[in-house]
Amino acid sequence: MSSTTYPPISYADYLKTNELLNQQKLRSEEFGRKAHDEMLFIIVHQTYELWFKQMLHELDSVLGIFAANPIPEQSMLMAVHRLSRMVEIHKLLVDQVSVMETMTPLDFLDFRDMLYPASGFQSTQWRLLENKLGLKRDQRLTYNAVPYHAYVNEAEAARMKQAEAEPSLFDRVDEWLTRTPFLKTKDFDFANVYGQAVRELLQQDREAVRRHAKSDEDRERNLKSIDETEKVFNALFDASRYAELKSQGHFRLSHEALQAALLILLYRDQPIFALPFQLLTKLQDLDELMTQWRYRHSLMAHRMLGSKIGTGGSSGAQYLKAATEKHRVFADLFNLATFLIPRSKLPALPESLTRKMNFTSP
Amino acid sequence: MSSTTYPPISYADYLKTNELLNQQKLRSEEFGRKAHDEMLFIIVHQTYELWFKQMLHELDSVLGIFAANPIPEQSMLMAVHRLSRMVEIHKLLVDQVSVMETMTPLDFLDFRDMLYPASGFQSTQWRLLENKLGLKRDQRLTYNAVPYHAYVNEAEAARMKQAEAEPSLFDRVDEWLTRTPFLKTKDFDFANVYGQAVRELLQQDREAVRRHAKSDEDRERNLKSIDETEKVFNALFDASRYAELKSQGHFRLSHEALQAALLILLYRDQPIFALPFQLLTKLQDLDELMTQWRYRHSLMAHRMLGSKIGTGGSSGAQYLKAATEKHRVFADLFNLATFLIPRSKLPALPESLTRKMNFTSP
Amino acid sequence: MSSTTYPPISYADYLKTNELLNQQKLRSEEFGRKAHDEMLFIIVHQTYELWFKQMLHELDSVLGIFAANPIPEQSMLMAVHRLSRMVEIHKLLVDQVSVMETMTPLDFLDFRDMLYPASGFQSTQWRLLENKLGLKRDQRLTYNAVPYHAYVNEAEAARMKQAEAEPSLFDRVDEWLTRTPFLKTKDFDFANVYGQAVRELLQQDREAVRRHAKSDEDRERNLKSIDETEKVFNALFDASRYAELKSQGHFRLSHEALQAALLILLYRDQPIFALPFQLLTKLQDLDELMTQWRYRHSLMAHRMLGSKIGTGGSSGAQYLKAATEKHRVFADLFNLATFLIPRSKLPALPESLTRKMNFTSP
Amino acid sequence: MSSTTYPPISYADYLKTNELLNQQKLRSEEFGRKAHDEMLFIIVHQTYELWFKQMLHELDSVLGIFAANPIPEQSMLMAVHRLSRMVEIHKLLVDQVSVMETMTPLDFLDFRDMLYPASGFQSTQWRLLENKLGLKRDQRLTYNAVPYHAYVNEAEAARMKQAEAEPSLFDRVDEWLTRTPFLKTKDFDFANVYGQAVRELLQQDREAVRRHAKSDEDRERNLKSIDETEKVFNALFDASRYAELKSQGHFRLSHEALQAALLILLYRDQPIFALPFQLLTKLQDLDELMTQWRYRHSLMAHRMLGSKIGTGGSSGAQYLKAATEKHRVFADLFNLATFLIPRSKLPALPESLTRKMNFTSP
Repeated sequence: MSSTTYPPISYADYLKTNELLNQQKLRSEEFGRKAHDEMLFIIVHQTYELWFKQMLHELDSVLGIFAANPIPEQSMLMAVHRLSRMVEIHKLLVDQVSVMETMTPLDFLDFRDMLYPASGFQSTQWRLLENKLGLKRDQRLTYNAVPYHAYVNEAEAARMKQAEAEPSLFDRVDEWLTRTPFLKTKDFDFANVYGQAVRELLQQDREAVRRHAKSDEDRERNLKSIDETEKVFNALFDASRYAELKSQGHFRLSHEALQAALLILLYRDQPIFALPFQLLTKLQDLDELMTQWRYRHSLMAHRMLGSKIGTGGSSGAQYLKAATEKHRVFADLFNLATFLIPRSKLPALPESLTRKMNFTSP
Repeated sequence: MSSTTYPPISYADYLKTNELLNQQKLRSEEFGRKAHDEMLFIIVHQTYELWFKQMLHELDSVLGIFAANPIPEQSMLMAVHRLSRMVEIHKLLVDQVSVMETMTPLDFLDFRDMLYPASGFQSTQWRLLENKLGLKRDQRLTYNAVPYHAYVNEAEAARMKQAEAEPSLFDRVDEWLTRTPFLKTKDFDFANVYGQAVRELLQQDREAVRRHAKSDEDRERNLKSIDETEKVFNALFDASRYAELKSQGHFRLSHEALQAALLILLYRDQPIFALPFQLLTKLQDLDELMTQWRYRHSLMAHRMLGSKIGTGGSSGAQYLKAATEKHRVFADLFNLATFLIPRSKLPALPESLTRKMNFTSP
Repeated sequence: MSSTTYPPISYADYLKTNELLNQQKLRSEEFGRKAHDEMLFIIVHQTYELWFKQMLHELDSVLGIFAANPIPEQSMLMAVHRLSRMVEIHKLLVDQVSVMETMTPLDFLDFRDMLYPASGFQSTQWRLLENKLGLKRDQRLTYNAVPYHAYVNEAEAARMKQAEAEPSLFDRVDEWLTRTPFLKTKDFDFANVYGQAVRELLQQDREAVRRHAKSDEDRERNLKSIDETEKVFNALFDASRYAELKSQGHFRLSHEALQAALLILLYRDQPIFALPFQLLTKLQDLDELMTQWRYRHSLMAHRMLGSKIGTGGSSGAQYLKAATEKHRVFADLFNLATFLIPRSKLPALPESLTRKMNFTSP
Repeated sequence: MSSTTYPPISYADYLKTNELLNQQKLRSEEFGRKAHDEMLFIIVHQTYELWFKQMLHELDSVLGIFAANPIPEQSMLMAVHRLSRMVEIHKLLVDQVSVMETMTPLDFLDFRDMLYPASGFQSTQWRLLENKLGLKRDQRLTYNAVPYHAYVNEAEAARMKQAEAEPSLFDRVDEWLTRTPFLKTKDFDFANVYGQAVRELLQQDREAVRRHAKSDEDRERNLKSIDETEKVFNALFDASRYAELKSQGHFRLSHEALQAALLILLYRDQPIFALPFQLLTKLQDLDELMTQWRYRHSLMAHRMLGSKIGTGGSSGAQYLKAATEKHRVFADLFNLATFLIPRSKLPALPESLTRKMNFTSP
């Protein structure tokens, strides 16, 4: 604690509380009709923006780690740790919606029309978060047919576009997954042995349906569903079939990346896959929390606005509800569950592989 | 504390811990392939069923209070209190999904196929909850085209149908709202004075849109939206128009009930409306939490199953997602936000009314 | 929505995001050794300060309502509503400790010694919150034997002292409670009839102990405890005895206020007592949440610092733990549980009273 | 999914809902004075017992993993995963206290005296949890001077005593830590190089205090605190001094185990220490959550009972508050923060070590 170099600093100066607590300017007060609940509205949004800054701070550091090729082994724990922190923060952001909901629609009306056209759609940081995670421009719902970057000034729009242009976390994870070792060695061809095991299982699924169906209609529907699963499954190993489905939007990861993610999920107990497995889980958690947050927001918007014209003159609730699903980034990881098989049917790894996957020789 | 009448009882005998803790029978253990995570699966569902029993216990008591005509004033606090408790419990049930999510899809596969055809769709208590709140038979999504009561045995199906046949909480609240005093007296015709105020405001909305629209397209879309709002609004006061929209599914409450709910929201600060206002808020909270729970469940089902055949041989995730919105009961209360006007424009209540709405004379 | 008067405003200008997001100055960065986790440390504390501002905003409005004598009936719902909001916010603040805990002690060490002597003890807003709720100067634990206001600059110290000098929420609630009607009328002397009922019950307690004690030692200890309860109870009705106990710190409310609070708890189902009952409950919830927050902080401080010198050069964890209990404001309301009797033994209210406690004649 | 082997099973039969939902027997109903809130009391405690069973299920599996010597590398991920699940469940158990708190003391009184002498102290599963984690008999607070196992029947007392006799998780972690490699090799003597670095830092602490103290009194107090820290620190490396302090209750882990835990915390980024680091963190999280739970319970008991005789005829709130701190098991891990030094001062690991700590050669 070499404080000789560091001058003392007070709490207020360190946290700049004066400046911070001087940024809450109520429009209703400015116009002589002070509305009590406008303070809550401002504070809720300002705390969101502070947390968005924190999320971007963590995300940028994970992007930094994942930009390296190869990623140093000693950086993996930190990457998982910081994604965990993002998940922890995001749970708080979802719960925070309940605080906003203590404002009644009638109280919102006291100042709502003074905010035009300000709207959450103009939150640059939220857009940066989405872009840096991996939301693509053509994936975005337009809002009132206006491109999303048209809602902000030029400097902010430039920041958003730059984030779009740079590799996102999705891109980096895709690249990193394709570099996963052990997919194909002379002792072990994962695609081959796994393909066999899965085909066996789907056949047993069919037999189960035939035996237990409640009706002909029920049986046919389920058999058809299994056939479709098998078709998608075939794409898992047939590169041109996969490319076709990918172009239709059914997949987003590269072919090798998807196979690698599957390998990690199946053999996660091998020490070399432990942190990668945790990382993929955290990406799912984050994707799910952002989805929950959009959904909670759409419910709150409905509660607050009914179907009346909103602060930005638009139907926010409907946009938010549609974006809930459309703006998902890591859906592939969720869909991997389709391709898992029971542990008891998992092909065993040859010793030549496990030796390299562990710290000590068996 | 007249313990002379009461024999002593131990914790274990009181809570029947022996019996309670003897109901966790793992199928995987029964079939000689014990899966560790099956215990979690059972415990999560059993705790849900215990909480469903508690929710039904509270709901039945509120139904009992609301069956009286008129409802005694001294029962209102208890009704609000018990609905608050249901809301508090339901928050816990939503958070509990995160505990279920600590089970990975690979671990679920260790015992999933031994559970066929058991499925959450067979939870009688959850259906009772939905029915007693007010979910109507024709509102329910079918699941694999099978009526919902076909999933359970006869006794349970009979319970569910009986709950459908009896007045639900929605029905009781509808009746209670229609009995709200002060809607129309010789000194005050709410529909009349309110209709005037709303029409003025919508006109101002139009002027705002014309002034601030970003483009012709933007303006036309918003003006059309206001016109539609005004059409729906007219239905608020035109009984035959309202009946028409109601038959199309846009409203569910009776005409007088909707107007009464609006009156309560607008004049909630009058002591006579305080508890009714809190009650309507709690109904919204509950409706929203059940909606959140269904949504969290659909996300979890996607995570756990991908698009593979589920424990009941069906695509649960898709059903749950669709049911999320379709199974809402108190949507009218949310839509009331469409009809609120700023407090500053609210017609004043004549003294002849406020005297009766308060405890002491002004 | 008369937007003619209101110029348009963007999200960024409204929420002052530029200024807000420019207040995070990392000391570690300033001194050329940027520590990643310092951003989290700053953001966590800044969001706390924003929420403190919000809590003070709500508290000031409740203090405003409670300054009136008498409090207008139409203000009670709003007072309860805003206290509810404070409770909802405080739950978030407690959960937020988990986000801070994602920082490991090793990461804290990267910048900890650059913060000297800044410390949470210098948070003016938190002190204002405690003072305005009702924490008295002589109730405060000193920290390193330094008066609490010595940690801040003069302007801030002046704000804190002013809040001490003005009536706190505790003071206002005390006054309001003493004005509760129905404590003593010609038809009903609450102190009298209640005293009789309680004495009967304590006698039954004694009989229960004698009958069920596990040993002589067990019986004597419990009988002694009942005797002490009865002594305190006598103070509830004996004004000079109460004054004596109050001077020893066992009670804080005035004598009439305590009796009134008891009346409200016992007869809360009477419409006139519904909102007062909810208000007292919210005060307890708030008191409990602030206590939980201090406790969580002491646990986190232990985790982060062990017993090493802290950022302010002091043992924060120990102070926080002791303050957890000592800084409680509404302990009287919790202790009222000691004086409740079973509903079945509750003296009935005469009709002359209930008529005034309800809206309509029975 | 070989359903040929498995007969079908319904939801109700699988979860034994009939039996489960038939274990809620209200004493107040049995005695003809049905109290509505007794159902909540029963359900809350029964769900707690179901979750305790789940926690024990996870804990037993982790104990199983940690009984092996050495622990297979492929089991570490599962151990961390299951402890994480216990943490996730325990958060729910803490939140569940808020549900219990929706019961008012007045409502509790309707049935409280019918429960004598049942009490949470008789929860066998909670005691098993504490014992299996590592709570020692002589560490337990007695309750009304009665040994804790005297509250239950013989079979349950036997279970508790057996759990005491077997190695607890604390014991197993202690053993496992002592087996941590790399503490002392010919290239690296951790105790030696670390001791030097720490001594330097404490000296800088002293200089900081002298420079920034607010008064002579302030300076002397802090210097004394540093001297005491240095004394405890010396015990970290002086085996006989450590043994002395351990016998006084300042430490519980073995000497080597404490040093190993420190090594893991300091060099956690080395892949070989990643999962061990996460495991130690989860043990702290669990310890902290159980502490929070006891504290929340003591607050609730105060709220529910004041200082009146409880259901078991004893002062539960006071016991719970004292047990909050006394019953901590992994306090050593929290106190390790005292011994950490800034990352920049951390002795570098020689390459001969890092090569073995990673999967690939540098």
